[in-house]
Amino acid sequence: MARYDIAILGTGPAGVSAAITATIRNKKIILIGSADLSAKMVKAHEIQNYPGLPHIKGEDMAAAFKAHLDSMGIGITEDRINAVYAMGDYFMLQGGAGMYEASTVILASGVSTSRMLPGEDEYLGRGVSYCATCDAPLYRGKKAIVIGYTEEEEAEARFLSEVCEEVLYFPMYKTDASENAGMPDAERFGARTRVIPEKPVAIEPGETMMNKVVRTAEGNTYKTDGVFVLRQSVAPDKLVPGIKVENNHVAVDRQMATSLPGCFAAGDVTGTPYQYIKSAGEGNVAALSAVAYLDKMKRA
Amino acid sequence: MARYDIAILGTGPAGVSAAITATIRNKKIILIGSADLSAKMVKAHEIQNYPGLPHIKGEDMAAAFKAHLDSMGIGITEDRINAVYAMGDYFMLQGGAGMYEASTVILASGVSTSRMLPGEDEYLGRGVSYCATCDAPLYRGKKAIVIGYTEEEEAEARFLSEVCEEVLYFPMYKTDASENAGMPDAERFGARTRVIPEKPVAIEPGETMMNKVVRTAEGNTYKTDGVFVLRQSVAPDKLVPGIKVENNHVAVDRQMATSLPGCFAAGDVTGTPYQYIKSAGEGNVAALSAVAYLDKMKRA
Repeated sequence: MARYDIAILGTGPAGVSAAITATIRNKKIILIGSADLSAKMVKAHEIQNYPGLPHIKGEDMAAAFKAHLDSMGIGITEDRINAVYAMGDYFMLQGGAGMYEASTVILASGVSTSRMLPGEDEYLGRGVSYCATCDAPLYRGKKAIVIGYTEEEEAEARFLSEVCEEVLYFPMYKTDASENAGMPDAERFGARTRVIPEKPVAIEPGETMMNKVVRTAEGNTYKTDGVFVLRQSVAPDKLVPGIKVENNHVAVDRQMATSLPGCFAAGDVTGTPYQYIKSAGEGNVAALSAVAYLDKMKRA
Repeated sequence: MARYDIAILGTGPAGVSAAITATIRNKKIILIGSADLSAKMVKAHEIQNYPGLPHIKGEDMAAAFKAHLDSMGIGITEDRINAVYAMGDYFMLQGGAGMYEASTVILASGVSTSRMLPGEDEYLGRGVSYCATCDAPLYRGKKAIVIGYTEEEEAEARFLSEVCEEVLYFPMYKTDASENAGMPDAERFGARTRVIPEKPVAIEPGETMMNKVVRTAEGNTYKTDGVFVLRQSVAPDKLVPGIKVENNHVAVDRQMATSLPGCFAAGDVTGTPYQYIKSAGEGNVAALSAVAYLDKMKRA
Protein backbone atom coordinates (compact mmCIF):
# COMPACT_ATOMS: atom_id res chain seq x y z
CA MET A 1 0.00 0.00 0.00
CA ALA A 2 1.29 3.47 -0.88
CA ARG A 3 2.19 5.34 2.27
CA TYR A 4 1.48 9.05 2.29
CA ASP A 5 3.53 11.54 4.28
CA ILE A 6 0.41 13.28 5.53
CA ALA A 7 -3.23 12.20 5.45
CA ILE A 8 -5.56 15.15 5.91
CA LEU A 9 -9.11 14.34 7.03
CA GLY A 10 -11.64 16.96 6.11
CA THR A 11 -12.04 19.51 3.34
CA GLY A 12 -13.22 22.53 5.31
CA PRO A 13 -10.96 25.56 5.81
CA ALA A 14 -8.61 23.67 8.15
CA GLY A 15 -8.09 20.74 5.81
CA VAL A 16 -7.75 22.93 2.72
CA SER A 17 -5.21 25.17 4.47
CA ALA A 18 -3.21 22.17 5.71
CA ALA A 19 -3.19 20.65 2.22
CA ILE A 20 -1.94 23.87 0.62
CA THR A 21 0.91 24.38 3.07
CA ALA A 22 1.93 20.70 3.10
CA THR A 23 2.04 20.72 -0.70
CA ILE A 24 4.23 23.81 -0.74
CA ARG A 25 6.54 21.91 1.57
CA ASN A 26 6.73 19.09 -1.02
CA LYS A 27 5.05 16.43 1.09
CA LYS A 28 3.10 13.56 -0.42
CA ILE A 29 -0.39 14.15 0.86
CA ILE A 30 -3.86 12.71 0.59
CA LEU A 31 -6.74 15.05 1.25
CA ILE A 32 -9.85 13.07 2.14
CA GLY A 33 -13.36 14.42 2.35
CA SER A 34 -16.13 15.85 0.24
CA ALA A 35 -15.10 17.25 -3.16
CA ASP A 36 -17.74 19.92 -2.56
CA LEU A 37 -15.72 20.99 0.51
CA SER A 38 -17.44 21.63 3.81
CA ALA A 39 -21.23 21.42 3.55
CA LYS A 40 -21.44 23.89 6.44
CA MET A 41 -19.30 26.41 4.55
CA VAL A 42 -21.15 26.04 1.26
CA LYS A 43 -24.43 26.77 3.03
CA ALA A 44 -23.15 29.81 4.94
CA HIS A 45 -25.09 32.90 3.94
CA GLU A 46 -22.25 35.38 4.29
CA ILE A 47 -18.88 35.29 6.01
CA GLN A 48 -17.80 38.73 7.14
CA ASN A 49 -14.58 38.15 9.00
CA TYR A 50 -12.22 36.21 6.76
CA PRO A 51 -9.65 38.96 6.18
CA GLY A 52 -9.12 39.71 2.51
CA LEU A 53 -12.42 38.18 1.37
CA PRO A 54 -14.91 40.71 2.75
CA HIS A 55 -18.59 39.78 2.98
CA ILE A 56 -18.23 36.61 0.96
CA LYS A 57 -20.96 34.04 0.46
CA GLY A 58 -20.18 30.54 1.68
CA GLU A 59 -20.44 29.12 -1.81
CA ASP A 60 -18.04 31.76 -3.16
CA MET A 61 -15.54 31.01 -0.41
CA ALA A 62 -15.78 27.32 -1.23
CA ALA A 63 -15.17 28.19 -4.90
CA ALA A 64 -12.15 30.32 -3.96
CA PHE A 65 -10.74 27.47 -1.86
CA LYS A 66 -11.38 25.00 -4.69
CA ALA A 67 -9.63 27.29 -7.18
CA HIS A 68 -6.68 27.55 -4.79
CA LEU A 69 -6.43 23.75 -4.54
CA ASP A 70 -6.78 23.40 -8.31
CA SER A 71 -4.05 25.97 -8.95
CA MET A 72 -1.67 23.75 -6.98
CA GLY A 73 -2.87 20.47 -8.46
CA ILE A 74 -4.27 19.24 -5.15
CA GLY A 75 -7.03 16.68 -5.64
CA ILE A 76 -9.60 15.47 -3.14
CA THR A 77 -10.15 11.78 -2.40
CA GLU A 78 -13.87 11.42 -1.84
CA ASP A 79 -14.23 9.12 1.10
CA ARG A 80 -15.24 9.15 4.72
CA ILE A 81 -12.79 7.87 7.28
CA ASN A 82 -14.40 5.82 10.03
CA ALA A 83 -11.37 5.01 12.10
CA VAL A 84 -7.74 6.06 12.42
CA TYR A 85 -5.41 3.57 14.09
CA ALA A 86 -1.96 4.49 15.42
CA MET A 87 0.30 1.62 14.28
CA GLY A 88 3.58 2.80 15.76
CA ASP A 89 5.47 4.78 13.13
CA TYR A 90 2.47 5.21 10.84
CA PHE A 91 -1.31 5.38 10.83
CA MET A 92 -3.89 3.12 9.22
CA LEU A 93 -7.05 4.89 8.07
CA GLN A 94 -10.21 2.89 7.51
CA GLY A 95 -12.45 4.56 4.98
CA GLY A 96 -15.74 3.58 3.42
CA ALA A 97 -14.02 3.17 0.05
CA GLY A 98 -10.75 1.65 1.23
CA MET A 99 -7.78 1.68 3.56
CA TYR A 100 -5.00 4.27 3.58
CA GLU A 101 -1.59 4.47 5.22
CA ALA A 102 0.16 7.66 6.24
CA SER A 103 3.15 8.60 8.37
CA THR A 104 1.23 11.48 9.92
CA VAL A 105 -2.40 12.48 10.17
CA ILE A 106 -4.09 15.86 10.40
CA LEU A 107 -7.61 15.66 11.79
CA ALA A 108 -9.64 18.48 10.29
CA SER A 109 -12.92 16.66 10.38
CA GLY A 110 -15.00 19.38 11.96
CA VAL A 111 -17.40 19.05 14.79
CA SER A 112 -20.76 17.50 15.08
CA THR A 113 -23.26 19.91 16.51
CA SER A 114 -25.62 17.08 17.38
CA ARG A 115 -25.41 15.24 20.66
CA MET A 116 -25.09 11.51 20.88
CA LEU A 117 -28.36 9.65 21.30
CA PRO A 118 -28.86 7.72 24.49
CA GLY A 119 -27.69 4.17 23.73
CA GLU A 120 -25.60 5.23 20.73
CA ASP A 121 -22.24 5.02 22.48
CA GLU A 122 -23.25 2.02 24.59
CA TYR A 123 -24.25 -0.16 21.62
CA LEU A 124 -21.67 1.05 19.10
CA GLY A 125 -20.36 -2.10 17.38
CA ARG A 126 -23.25 -4.15 18.81
CA GLY A 127 -26.07 -3.12 16.49
CA VAL A 128 -25.09 0.52 16.14
CA SER A 129 -22.74 1.57 13.33
CA TYR A 130 -21.29 4.81 11.95
CA CYS A 131 -20.39 3.37 8.55
CA ALA A 132 -22.87 2.00 6.02
CA THR A 133 -20.15 0.97 3.58
CA CYS A 134 -18.25 -0.93 6.25
CA ASP A 135 -21.11 -2.72 7.93
CA ALA A 136 -23.80 -3.13 5.26
CA PRO A 137 -22.77 -6.76 4.62
CA LEU A 138 -23.82 -7.60 8.20
CA TYR A 139 -27.38 -6.56 7.37
CA ARG A 140 -27.84 -8.33 4.04
CA GLY A 141 -31.49 -9.30 3.78
CA LYS A 142 -32.21 -7.77 7.18
CA LYS A 143 -33.87 -4.60 8.47
CA ALA A 144 -31.83 -1.44 9.06
CA ILE A 145 -32.60 1.99 10.42
CA VAL A 146 -30.65 5.06 9.23
CA ILE A 147 -30.62 8.15 11.42
CA GLY A 148 -29.28 10.74 8.99
CA TYR A 149 -28.11 14.15 10.20
CA THR A 150 -27.50 15.72 6.78
CA GLU A 151 -28.79 15.31 3.24
CA GLU A 152 -25.48 13.70 2.29
CA GLU A 153 -26.57 10.63 4.28
CA GLU A 154 -29.40 9.93 1.83
CA ALA A 155 -26.84 8.32 -0.46
CA GLU A 156 -25.95 5.92 2.35
CA ALA A 157 -29.62 4.99 2.68
CA ARG A 158 -29.74 4.32 -1.07
CA PHE A 159 -26.75 2.04 -0.76
CA LEU A 160 -28.21 0.14 2.21
CA SER A 161 -31.48 -0.19 0.31
CA GLU A 162 -29.62 -2.29 -2.26
CA VAL A 163 -28.50 -4.72 0.41
CA CYS A 164 -31.15 -4.76 3.13
CA GLU A 165 -34.66 -6.11 3.10
CA GLU A 166 -36.00 -2.84 4.49
CA VAL A 167 -34.53 0.53 5.45
CA LEU A 168 -36.24 3.09 7.65
CA TYR A 169 -34.76 6.57 7.17
CA PHE A 170 -35.14 9.18 9.92
CA PRO A 171 -34.04 12.60 8.61
CA MET A 172 -32.65 14.74 11.46
CA TYR A 173 -32.67 17.85 9.24
CA LYS A 174 -35.32 19.93 7.51
CA THR A 175 -36.37 18.18 4.36
CA ASP A 176 -39.35 18.00 2.07
CA ALA A 177 -38.87 14.25 2.04
CA SER A 178 -41.18 14.13 5.06
CA GLU A 179 -44.05 15.00 2.78
CA ASN A 180 -43.57 11.67 1.10
CA ALA A 181 -43.61 9.90 4.44
CA GLY A 182 -44.24 6.22 3.99
CA MET A 183 -44.09 6.53 0.19
CA PRO A 184 -40.84 5.15 -1.17
CA ASP A 185 -38.82 7.62 -3.23
CA ALA A 186 -36.64 5.07 -4.98
CA GLU A 187 -34.42 7.50 -6.81
CA ARG A 188 -33.58 9.54 -3.76
CA PHE A 189 -33.61 7.03 -0.89
CA GLY A 190 -33.61 3.65 -2.61
CA ALA A 191 -36.44 1.28 -3.50
CA ARG A 192 -36.61 -0.41 -0.10
CA THR A 193 -36.37 2.74 2.01
CA ARG A 194 -39.24 4.42 3.79
CA VAL A 195 -38.78 7.92 5.24
CA ILE A 196 -40.15 8.25 8.77
CA PRO A 197 -40.68 11.92 9.72
CA GLU A 198 -40.10 11.38 13.44
CA LYS A 199 -37.23 12.29 15.77
CA PRO A 200 -35.36 9.38 17.32
CA VAL A 201 -34.57 10.08 20.97
CA ALA A 202 -33.04 6.78 22.11
CA ILE A 203 -31.59 3.50 20.92
CA GLU A 204 -32.71 0.64 23.15
CA PRO A 205 -31.87 -3.05 23.35
CA GLY A 206 -33.92 -5.51 21.29
CA GLU A 207 -34.56 -9.20 21.57
CA THR A 208 -31.04 -10.33 20.68
CA MET A 209 -27.66 -8.76 21.38
CA MET A 210 -27.60 -7.15 17.92
CA ASN A 211 -31.30 -6.25 17.57
CA LYS A 212 -32.23 -2.74 18.53
CA VAL A 213 -35.30 -0.62 19.09
CA VAL A 214 -35.41 3.05 18.12
CA ARG A 215 -37.72 5.20 20.24
CA THR A 216 -38.95 8.51 18.82
CA ALA A 217 -40.09 11.78 20.35
CA GLU A 218 -43.48 11.03 18.83
CA GLY A 219 -43.79 8.06 21.22
CA ASN A 220 -43.35 5.29 18.68
CA THR A 221 -40.82 2.44 18.71
CA TYR A 222 -39.24 0.78 15.67
CA LYS A 223 -37.62 -2.65 15.84
CA THR A 224 -34.59 -3.24 13.65
CA ASP A 225 -31.58 -5.47 13.11
CA GLY A 226 -29.19 -2.55 13.14
CA VAL A 227 -29.03 1.22 13.47
CA PHE A 228 -26.78 3.45 11.36
CA VAL A 229 -26.18 6.84 12.97
CA LEU A 230 -24.73 8.97 10.18
CA ARG A 231 -23.29 12.41 10.78
CA GLN A 232 -20.74 14.40 8.81
CA SER A 233 -18.46 14.28 11.84
CA VAL A 234 -17.90 11.45 14.24
CA ALA A 235 -16.85 12.16 17.85
CA PRO A 236 -13.05 12.41 17.76
CA ASP A 237 -12.37 9.65 20.27
CA LYS A 238 -14.60 7.33 18.24
CA LEU A 239 -12.69 8.29 15.10
CA VAL A 240 -9.23 7.95 16.67
CA PRO A 241 -9.18 5.39 19.48
CA GLY A 242 -6.92 6.48 22.32
CA ILE A 243 -6.74 10.17 21.44
CA LYS A 244 -7.06 12.61 24.32
CA VAL A 245 -10.31 14.55 24.30
CA GLU A 246 -11.29 17.57 26.39
CA ASN A 247 -14.88 18.85 26.40
CA ASN A 248 -15.69 16.75 23.33
CA HIS A 249 -12.82 18.27 21.35
CA VAL A 250 -9.41 16.88 20.50
CA ALA A 251 -6.88 18.23 22.98
CA VAL A 252 -4.04 20.04 21.17
CA ASP A 253 -1.12 22.22 22.12
CA ARG A 254 -0.17 25.49 20.42
CA GLN A 255 1.58 23.53 17.65
CA MET A 256 -1.68 21.58 17.04
CA ALA A 257 -0.13 18.32 18.26
CA THR A 258 -2.59 15.83 19.78
CA SER A 259 -1.77 13.29 22.48
CA LEU A 260 -0.72 10.80 19.76
CA PRO A 261 2.74 11.42 18.27
CA GLY A 262 2.41 12.16 14.55
CA CYS A 263 -1.28 12.98 14.82
CA PHE A 264 -2.19 16.68 14.58
CA ALA A 265 -5.55 18.41 14.51
CA ALA A 266 -6.96 21.71 13.26
CA GLY A 267 -10.23 23.58 13.02
CA ASP A 268 -13.52 23.03 14.79
CA VAL A 269 -12.46 19.56 15.97
CA THR A 270 -9.98 21.28 18.33
CA GLY A 271 -12.54 23.53 19.96
CA THR A 272 -14.22 26.90 19.86
CA PRO A 273 -14.46 29.47 18.40
CA TYR A 274 -15.90 27.83 15.30
CA GLN A 275 -14.60 30.32 12.77
CA TYR A 276 -13.34 29.90 9.22
CA ILE A 277 -10.23 32.01 9.65
CA LYS A 278 -9.31 30.30 12.93
CA SER A 279 -9.61 26.93 11.22
CA ALA A 280 -7.52 28.01 8.23
CA GLY A 281 -4.81 29.34 10.55
CA GLU A 282 -4.71 26.12 12.54
CA GLY A 283 -4.54 24.02 9.37
CA ASN A 284 -1.39 25.90 8.40
CA VAL A 285 0.21 25.33 11.81
CA ALA A 286 -0.77 21.64 11.85
CA ALA A 287 0.78 21.15 8.39
CA LEU A 288 4.06 22.77 9.41
CA SER A 289 4.13 20.71 12.61
CA ALA A 290 3.56 17.52 10.59
CA VAL A 291 6.39 18.56 8.26
CA ALA A 292 8.70 19.12 11.24
CA TYR A 293 7.68 15.72 12.66
CA LEU A 294 8.42 13.98 9.34
CA ASP A 295 11.81 15.66 9.13
CA LYS A 296 12.64 14.51 12.65
CA MET A 297 11.53 10.93 11.85
CA LYS A 298 13.77 10.90 8.78
CA ARG A 299 16.78 12.06 10.80
CA ALA A 300 16.18 9.50 13.57
CA MET B 1 -9.95 60.30 28.15
CA ALA B 2 -12.14 58.09 25.96
CA ARG B 3 -11.79 54.49 26.99
CA TYR B 4 -11.91 51.93 24.22
CA ASP B 5 -13.22 48.41 24.71
CA ILE B 6 -10.30 46.93 22.82
CA ALA B 7 -7.01 48.48 21.76
CA ILE B 8 -5.37 46.51 18.98
CA LEU B 9 -1.65 47.07 18.47
CA GLY B 10 -0.43 46.29 15.00
CA THR B 11 -1.89 46.34 11.51
CA GLY B 12 -0.53 43.10 10.12
CA PRO B 13 -2.85 40.12 9.47
CA ALA B 14 -3.38 39.47 13.20
CA GLY B 15 -4.37 43.05 14.02
CA VAL B 16 -6.55 43.43 10.94
CA SER B 17 -8.34 40.15 11.68
CA ALA B 18 -8.88 41.09 15.33
CA ALA B 19 -10.26 44.51 14.32
CA ILE B 20 -12.72 43.00 11.85
CA THR B 21 -14.09 40.44 14.29
CA ALA B 22 -14.24 42.86 17.23
CA THR B 23 -16.13 45.36 15.05
CA ILE B 24 -18.65 42.71 14.01
CA ARG B 25 -19.15 42.10 17.73
CA ASN B 26 -19.96 45.80 18.18
CA LYS B 27 -17.00 46.67 20.34
CA LYS B 28 -15.48 50.14 20.44
CA ILE B 29 -12.00 49.54 19.15
CA ILE B 30 -8.88 51.46 18.30
CA LEU B 31 -6.54 49.89 15.76
CA ILE B 32 -3.07 51.37 16.11
CA GLY B 33 -0.22 50.94 13.66
CA SER B 34 0.87 51.86 10.18
CA ALA B 35 -1.89 52.89 7.78
CA ASP B 36 0.11 51.08 5.11
CA LEU B 37 -0.36 47.91 7.16
CA SER B 38 2.55 45.60 7.84
CA ALA B 39 5.72 46.67 6.04
CA LYS B 40 6.78 43.02 5.98
CA MET B 41 3.54 42.03 4.24
CA VAL B 42 3.67 44.82 1.67
CA LYS B 43 7.17 43.77 0.67
CA ALA B 44 6.36 40.06 0.41
CA HIS B 45 6.96 38.85 -3.15
CA GLU B 46 4.18 36.29 -3.25
CA ILE B 47 2.10 34.54 -0.59
CA GLN B 48 1.03 31.08 -1.71
CA ASN B 49 -0.72 29.62 1.28
CA TYR B 50 -3.43 32.04 2.39
CA PRO B 51 -6.46 29.93 1.45
CA GLY B 52 -8.81 31.71 -0.92
CA LEU B 53 -6.21 34.22 -2.14
CA PRO B 54 -3.92 32.00 -4.20
CA HIS B 55 -0.47 33.25 -5.21
CA ILE B 56 -1.10 36.79 -4.10
CA LYS B 57 1.52 39.52 -3.97
CA GLY B 58 2.10 41.09 -0.58
CA GLU B 59 0.96 44.48 -1.80
CA ASP B 60 -2.25 42.98 -3.19
CA MET B 61 -2.95 41.21 0.08
CA ALA B 62 -2.40 44.47 1.94
CA ALA B 63 -4.84 46.15 -0.49
CA ALA B 64 -7.40 43.39 0.09
CA PHE B 65 -7.07 43.78 3.86
CA LYS B 66 -7.36 47.56 3.55
CA ALA B 67 -10.49 47.20 1.42
CA HIS B 68 -11.95 44.85 4.04
CA LEU B 69 -11.28 47.37 6.81
CA ASP B 70 -12.70 50.19 4.69
CA SER B 71 -15.85 48.21 3.93
CA MET B 72 -16.53 48.06 7.65
CA GLY B 73 -15.56 51.63 8.40
CA ILE B 74 -12.53 50.62 10.46
CA GLY B 75 -9.89 53.33 10.56
CA ILE B 76 -6.25 53.07 11.57
CA THR B 77 -4.71 55.34 14.19
CA GLU B 78 -1.18 55.97 12.98
CA ASP B 79 0.99 55.76 16.03
CA ARG B 80 3.57 53.56 17.63
CA ILE B 81 2.95 52.27 21.11
CA ASN B 82 6.03 52.26 23.30
CA ALA B 83 4.56 50.91 26.50
CA VAL B 84 1.39 49.21 27.70
CA TYR B 85 0.67 49.45 31.42
CA ALA B 86 -1.85 47.22 33.23
CA MET B 87 -3.75 49.60 35.53
CA GLY B 88 -6.09 47.11 37.19
CA ASP B 89 -9.34 47.07 35.24
CA TYR B 90 -7.94 48.87 32.22
CA PHE B 91 -4.74 49.47 30.29
CA MET B 92 -2.83 52.69 29.61
CA LEU B 93 -1.02 52.81 26.28
CA GLN B 94 1.82 55.24 25.76
CA GLY B 95 2.22 56.15 22.13
CA GLY B 96 4.48 58.54 20.31
CA ALA B 97 1.51 60.74 19.45
CA GLY B 98 -0.44 60.40 22.68
CA MET B 99 -1.89 58.24 25.43
CA TYR B 100 -4.78 55.82 25.06
CA GLU B 101 -6.98 53.91 27.50
CA ALA B 102 -8.64 50.58 26.82
CA SER B 103 -10.38 47.89 28.85
CA THR B 104 -8.57 45.18 26.95
CA VAL B 105 -5.53 45.00 24.72
CA ILE B 106 -4.64 42.74 21.81
CA LEU B 107 -0.93 42.66 21.08
CA ALA B 108 -0.45 42.01 17.38
CA SER B 109 2.77 43.92 17.08
CA GLY B 110 4.78 41.32 15.21
CA VAL B 111 8.24 40.16 15.96
CA SER B 112 11.58 41.74 15.56
CA THR B 113 13.94 39.56 13.61
CA SER B 114 16.94 41.45 14.90
CA ARG B 115 18.65 40.54 18.13
CA MET B 116 19.24 43.02 20.91
CA LEU B 117 22.61 44.71 20.88
CA PRO B 118 24.91 44.06 23.83
CA GLY B 119 24.24 46.89 26.30
CA GLU B 120 20.84 47.72 24.81
CA ASP B 121 18.77 46.06 27.50
CA GLU B 122 21.19 47.00 30.28
CA TYR B 123 21.11 50.74 29.53
CA LEU B 124 17.48 51.05 28.45
CA GLY B 125 16.17 54.20 30.14
CA ARG B 126 19.71 55.29 31.00
CA GLY B 127 20.91 56.65 27.68
CA VAL B 128 19.16 54.07 25.50
CA SER B 129 15.64 54.74 24.23
CA TYR B 130 13.14 53.05 21.94
CA CYS B 131 11.05 56.18 21.32
CA ALA B 132 12.27 59.31 19.61
CA THR B 133 9.00 61.16 20.12
CA CYS B 134 8.96 60.39 23.82
CA ASP B 135 12.55 61.11 24.70
CA ALA B 136 13.72 63.70 22.16
CA PRO B 137 13.25 66.55 24.67
CA LEU B 138 15.96 64.96 26.85
CA TYR B 139 18.44 65.48 24.05
CA ARG B 140 17.69 69.05 23.05
CA GLY B 141 20.95 70.63 21.85
CA LYS B 142 22.81 67.40 22.50
CA LYS B 143 24.22 64.57 20.38
CA ALA B 144 22.13 61.53 19.55
CA ILE B 145 22.76 58.30 17.72
CA VAL B 146 19.96 56.52 15.88
CA ILE B 147 20.33 52.82 15.09
CA GLY B 148 17.55 52.33 12.57
CA TYR B 149 16.43 48.85 11.54
CA THR B 150 14.02 49.87 8.77
CA GLU B 151 13.59 52.78 6.38
CA GLU B 152 10.60 53.91 8.40
CA GLU B 153 13.03 55.02 11.13
CA GLU B 154 14.50 57.70 8.87
CA ALA B 155 11.52 59.88 9.78
CA GLU B 156 12.52 59.56 13.43
CA ALA B 157 16.02 60.72 12.56
CA ARG B 158 14.54 63.74 10.75
CA PHE B 159 12.53 64.60 13.83
CA LEU B 160 15.54 64.25 16.17
CA SER B 161 17.54 66.38 13.78
CA GLU B 162 15.16 69.26 14.52
CA VAL B 163 15.90 68.99 18.23
CA CYS B 164 19.44 67.72 18.64
CA GLU B 165 22.74 69.40 17.89
CA GLU B 166 23.89 66.39 15.91
CA VAL B 167 22.42 63.04 14.89
CA LEU B 168 24.44 60.07 13.69
CA TYR B 169 22.28 57.61 11.78
CA PHE B 170 23.35 53.97 11.46
CA PRO B 171 21.15 52.18 8.92
CA MET B 172 20.83 48.46 9.79
CA TYR B 173 19.26 47.70 6.40
CA LYS B 174 20.35 47.88 2.78
CA THR B 175 20.14 51.46 1.63
CA ASP B 176 21.70 53.68 -0.98
CA ALA B 177 21.98 56.33 1.73
CA SER B 178 25.40 54.88 2.52
CA GLU B 179 26.68 56.35 -0.72
CA ASN B 180 26.12 59.76 0.77
CA ALA B 181 28.03 58.78 3.90
CA GLY B 182 29.06 61.84 5.83
CA MET B 183 27.15 64.16 3.49
CA PRO B 184 23.96 65.42 5.09
CA ASP B 185 20.80 64.59 3.13
CA ALA B 186 18.59 67.16 4.80
CA GLU B 187 15.35 66.19 3.12
CA ARG B 188 15.65 62.53 3.93
CA PHE B 189 17.45 62.42 7.27
CA GLY B 190 17.31 66.00 8.53
CA ALA B 191 19.80 68.85 8.30
CA ARG B 192 21.85 67.84 11.34
CA THR B 193 22.00 64.12 10.56
CA ARG B 194 24.98 62.28 9.18
CA VAL B 195 24.61 58.71 7.89
CA ILE B 196 27.36 56.39 9.09
CA PRO B 197 27.55 53.23 6.95
CA GLU B 198 28.84 51.01 9.76
CA LYS B 199 27.25 48.23 11.83
CA PRO B 200 26.91 48.94 15.55
CA VAL B 201 27.78 45.84 17.57
CA ALA B 202 27.61 47.14 21.14
CA ILE B 203 26.45 50.02 23.31
CA GLU B 204 28.98 50.77 26.01
CA PRO B 205 29.04 53.14 28.99
CA GLY B 206 30.34 56.66 28.45
CA GLU B 207 31.76 59.30 30.79
CA THR B 208 28.49 60.00 32.63
CA MET B 209 25.57 57.74 33.54
CA MET B 210 23.65 58.86 30.45
CA ASN B 211 26.52 59.19 27.97
CA LYS B 212 27.10 56.22 25.78
CA VAL B 213 29.61 54.92 23.28
CA VAL B 214 28.55 52.95 20.22
CA ARG B 215 31.11 50.45 18.96
CA THR B 216 30.89 49.26 15.36
CA ALA B 217 31.96 46.11 13.53
CA GLU B 218 34.35 48.31 11.58
CA GLY B 219 36.27 48.90 14.82
CA ASN B 220 35.26 52.51 15.41
CA THR B 221 33.63 54.04 18.48
CA TYR B 222 31.20 56.97 18.54
CA LYS B 223 30.51 59.00 21.68
CA THR B 224 26.99 60.29 22.17
CA ASP B 225 24.57 61.68 24.73
CA GLY B 226 21.94 59.08 23.91
CA VAL B 227 21.22 56.13 21.65
CA PHE B 228 17.87 55.49 19.96
CA VAL B 229 17.43 51.87 18.93
CA LEU B 230 14.48 51.91 16.54
CA ARG B 231 12.82 48.76 15.25
CA GLN B 232 9.33 48.15 13.94
CA SER B 233 8.75 45.77 16.86
CA VAL B 234 9.93 46.11 20.40
CA ALA B 235 10.58 43.01 22.52
CA PRO B 236 7.22 42.12 24.09
CA ASP B 237 8.37 42.33 27.71
CA LYS B 238 9.78 45.78 27.00
CA LEU B 239 6.46 46.81 25.46
CA VAL B 240 4.31 45.33 28.23
CA PRO B 241 6.10 45.31 31.58
CA GLY B 242 5.29 42.20 33.59
CA ILE B 243 3.99 40.08 30.74
CA LYS B 244 5.14 36.46 30.66
CA VAL B 245 7.52 35.73 27.81
CA GLU B 246 8.77 32.36 26.56
CA ASN B 247 11.60 32.13 24.01
CA ASN B 248 11.25 35.85 23.23
CA HIS B 249 7.55 35.48 22.44
CA VAL B 250 4.49 36.38 24.48
CA ALA B 251 3.23 33.26 26.24
CA VAL B 252 -0.41 32.58 25.34
CA ASP B 253 -2.90 29.79 25.82
CA ARG B 254 -5.18 28.37 23.12
CA GLN B 255 -7.59 31.27 23.65
CA MET B 256 -4.72 33.74 23.02
CA ALA B 257 -4.81 34.97 26.63
CA THR B 258 -1.49 36.26 27.99
CA SER B 259 -0.41 36.16 31.63
CA LEU B 260 -2.10 39.55 32.19
CA PRO B 261 -5.91 39.40 32.56
CA GLY B 262 -7.52 41.39 29.74
CA CYS B 263 -4.39 41.33 27.61
CA PHE B 264 -4.46 39.01 24.61
CA ALA B 265 -1.96 38.47 21.82
CA ALA B 266 -1.99 37.18 18.25
CA GLY B 267 0.31 36.64 15.33
CA ASP B 268 4.10 36.51 15.15
CA VAL B 269 4.43 38.04 18.63
CA THR B 270 3.09 34.75 20.06
CA GLY B 271 5.62 32.54 18.29
CA THR B 272 6.33 30.50 15.21
CA PRO B 273 5.32 29.66 12.55
CA TYR B 274 5.42 33.18 11.14
CA GLN B 275 2.60 32.79 8.65
CA TYR B 276 -0.08 35.21 7.46
CA ILE B 277 -2.95 32.76 7.79
CA LYS B 278 -1.84 31.63 11.26
CA SER B 279 -1.73 35.29 12.35
CA ALA B 280 -5.15 36.07 10.89
CA GLY B 281 -6.65 33.04 12.64
CA GLU B 282 -5.15 34.02 15.97
CA GLY B 283 -6.38 37.60 15.61
CA ASN B 284 -9.91 36.26 15.29
CA VAL B 285 -9.56 34.11 18.41
CA ALA B 286 -7.97 36.94 20.41
CA ALA B 287 -10.84 39.27 19.47
CA LEU B 288 -13.49 36.78 20.55
CA SER B 289 -11.63 36.14 23.80
CA ALA B 290 -11.46 39.90 24.46
CA VAL B 291 -15.20 40.13 23.76
CA ALA B 292 -15.88 37.30 26.23
CA TYR B 293 -13.66 39.03 28.81
CA LEU B 294 -15.51 42.33 28.37
CA ASP B 295 -18.86 40.59 28.75
CA LYS B 296 -17.65 38.92 31.94
CA MET B 297 -16.38 42.27 33.30
CA LYS B 298 -19.72 43.87 32.62
CA ARG B 299 -21.61 41.13 34.46
CA ALA B 300 -19.23 41.22 37.45
